[in-house]
Amino acid sequence: MLQSQLFTKTRKEAPKDEVAKNASLLIRASFVDKLHAGVYTYLPLGFLVLKNIEKIIREEMNAIGGQELLLPALHPKENWEKTGRWESMDDLYKLTDGSGKEYALGATHEEVIVPLAKQFVSSYKDLPFSAYQIQDKFRAELRAKSGILRGREFIMKDLYSFHRNEEDLNSFYEEVRGAYTRIFKRCGIGNETHYTFADGGSFSDYSHEFQTVTEAGEDIIHICKGCKTAINEEVIAEQKDCPECDGKSLETRKAIEVGNIFPLKTKYSDPFELTYKDEAGKEQPVLMGCYGIGLGRLMGAIVEVCNDENGIIWPDEVAPFEYHLIAISGGDGEAMKQAQEFYEELKQKGHTVLFDDRDTGAGEKFKDADLLGVPKRIVMSAKTLEEGKVELKRRDEEDSQLVAREDLLG
Amino acid sequence: MLQSQLFTKTRKEAPKDEVAKNASLLIRASFVDKLHAGVYTYLPLGFLVLKNIEKIIREEMNAIGGQELLLPALHPKENWEKTGRWESMDDLYKLTDGSGKEYALGATHEEVIVPLAKQFVSSYKDLPFSAYQIQDKFRAELRAKSGILRGREFIMKDLYSFHRNEEDLNSFYEEVRGAYTRIFKRCGIGNETHYTFADGGSFSDYSHEFQTVTEAGEDIIHICKGCKTAINEEVIAEQKDCPECDGKSLETRKAIEVGNIFPLKTKYSDPFELTYKDEAGKEQPVLMGCYGIGLGRLMGAIVEVCNDENGIIWPDEVAPFEYHLIAISGGDGEAMKQAQEFYEELKQKGHTVLFDDRDTGAGEKFKDADLLGVPKRIVMSAKTLEEGKVELKRRDEEDSQLVAREDLLG
Repeated sequence: MLQSQLFTKTRKEAPKDEVAKNASLLIRASFVDKLHAGVYTYLPLGFLVLKNIEKIIREEMNAIGGQELLLPALHPKENWEKTGRWESMDDLYKLTDGSGKEYALGATHEEVIVPLAKQFVSSYKDLPFSAYQIQDKFRAELRAKSGILRGREFIMKDLYSFHRNEEDLNSFYEEVRGAYTRIFKRCGIGNETHYTFADGGSFSDYSHEFQTVTEAGEDIIHICKGCKTAINEEVIAEQKDCPECDGKSLETRKAIEVGNIFPLKTKYSDPFELTYKDEAGKEQPVLMGCYGIGLGRLMGAIVEVCNDENGIIWPDEVAPFEYHLIAISGGDGEAMKQAQEFYEELKQKGHTVLFDDRDTGAGEKFKDADLLGVPKRIVMSAKTLEEGKVELKRRDEEDSQLVAREDLLG
Repeated sequence: MLQSQLFTKTRKEAPKDEVAKNASLLIRASFVDKLHAGVYTYLPLGFLVLKNIEKIIREEMNAIGGQELLLPALHPKENWEKTGRWESMDDLYKLTDGSGKEYALGATHEEVIVPLAKQFVSSYKDLPFSAYQIQDKFRAELRAKSGILRGREFIMKDLYSFHRNEEDLNSFYEEVRGAYTRIFKRCGIGNETHYTFADGGSFSDYSHEFQTVTEAGEDIIHICKGCKTAINEEVIAEQKDCPECDGKSLETRKAIEVGNIFPLKTKYSDPFELTYKDEAGKEQPVLMGCYGIGLGRLMGAIVEVCNDENGIIWPDEVAPFEYHLIAISGGDGEAMKQAQEFYEELKQKGHTVLFDDRDTGAGEKFKDADLLGVPKRIVMSAKTLEEGKVELKRRDEEDSQLVAREDLLG
């Protein structure tokens, strides 16, 4: 992409009302824009990051057999009355159309996917299966001060699984745990992210979260120094030792919940009477699990973990581009001309490149490059041309080196 | 994909309240499910078609320089008051949160993208540019009886362009016309889709639609027998001859509007004071165009055009799979075994395949294949094995032929 063509621009300062570091950096770097509290636009550069995160999640969900679909956001009131959440869920957005019909805006999708599953499940032969979507959700958050970590409108991957018995549910649950571990690793925050025991509500001993350690976290977790499993503050009274290795040495840290997996069992199958006939022809309740990841929250968590005083440092697989190519215009314009050629070569070889072809000074280009956080910066100037090379610097390293162009094309 | 693993199933009959042919076929074939009037779920097979349509649109938008972003659905009331549409747009969904703050659910996005553009446009050097999104929209349609042709919630590609003068707007407008022509051609309805002159509202002589001829259409168009350009019934009183070639011989047909392009000029720049400084430093209003395609509506139009009494006939580029591989179980299970191997081979060569590995009769498999409408059906049975070949039949042709497996792998 040619930076001169990008309609967005970096900003020197974030809006004064933006207190969260993730949103502040993302707005300054023109990845997102705040429409109003808790509601953000993904600008072209932010959209590229969002699509990379989506691709990672989609691949890992497909790898465990998840079937992708797309459920609506506009839900009939009746479905939410059936589970009792029309009244009990405080942050549910409700609306009425001209004819007086009432709707909920989807804050989650059990109320829609369970009646859908009911249409297709009748026998044990129809189980197990799992289905997921990557879709917009709405919650009337009272506090919306955490940037894209906690939005009133947010994109979520929600996976639902359907099983004949607890054994099958537990086995799939572990597969999702593996997929989530791979997702956070590929997103570059594997080391900071801990499998965490949390409250299971009234129907299960525990649910499980994936918590990423950062000062911006709203949760407190206790991390086992032995196996790195964590316990959420909310259950530390009942669970004082590590539930995985019985370790007793725990470290207390602030963290962001970037994913959760929940054994729903029959909590939502029951109100919709989602059952199946077993081999003996007897009706049995279907057991369910649900598994969520907020894509915006994940992007915000990555930014909270991966930054320095100069800007964002995108991990390779989620970065909007692999290379940020910067041409420093000399008197004769030769560097710009050669950079233009190298840009085309890199693209032809399948690399993604942001090419700073703007007619601005080197200082501003370097400053913007640090703020934007593309992993590898290439500089072409009269000086590097003299050497017959280009300058390469990783965003997460201090030193640059002169390398041959061919070395970057491979 | 293994058909035995798909959690959805075909239906013998569509729900009785579903009067539209597109929804009836799509529901029977388990591509979509109706949650309530005008609101549909895209099931796994339908989701694949949706993604193919999305890919075509994205490629053609990127080819004309469109920058993709993602705008929110939850809009502040103030933005809609500024354009007067908070009051004037009858089908706008409005809602209030717990604190009494009022929102509109995005029915279109001029109210959001114009203030966004205002942040980045100050000089003539910042123009022109165009930005688009593929995103969920909401409209409180009173009549929602056309299946996925007219939804209360629907996915739309909306592109907005920003220009210094009419000449530049007109030149981009023609580029979009070209892109739209390519999109409908790639979607398989190029021959049935006509560039149509329609009402331009109070601020332009005409807007333009792309209208697809089908009996399910809610519009009436008059098609020039010479150049195939059409005139919408709503402007036929002022425009009696073909505006492209002055042809006087017109044919009247029912049609569905699958796309529209609209020269907005300063209609939405004015209320938000979106201006730029020209070379002389004088403030000038920014001129705009907007360009929409409803993805669900396009999918519905394809189904209305491409079907027969047995089901859907997907055009190649939007089809959920290239091949529908059907194994007819013989006594020794050899056909199923060889089909399993061939399925893996086809996938390895990059083909997309739905493999009917279900333990059901040939009649049901053939019936489902016709209903689902995958372009190429491959049958493997004891009979074809004897010949050392497989049977290939295109969904849009009557006759099948025996071919060597190698011929399908290439």
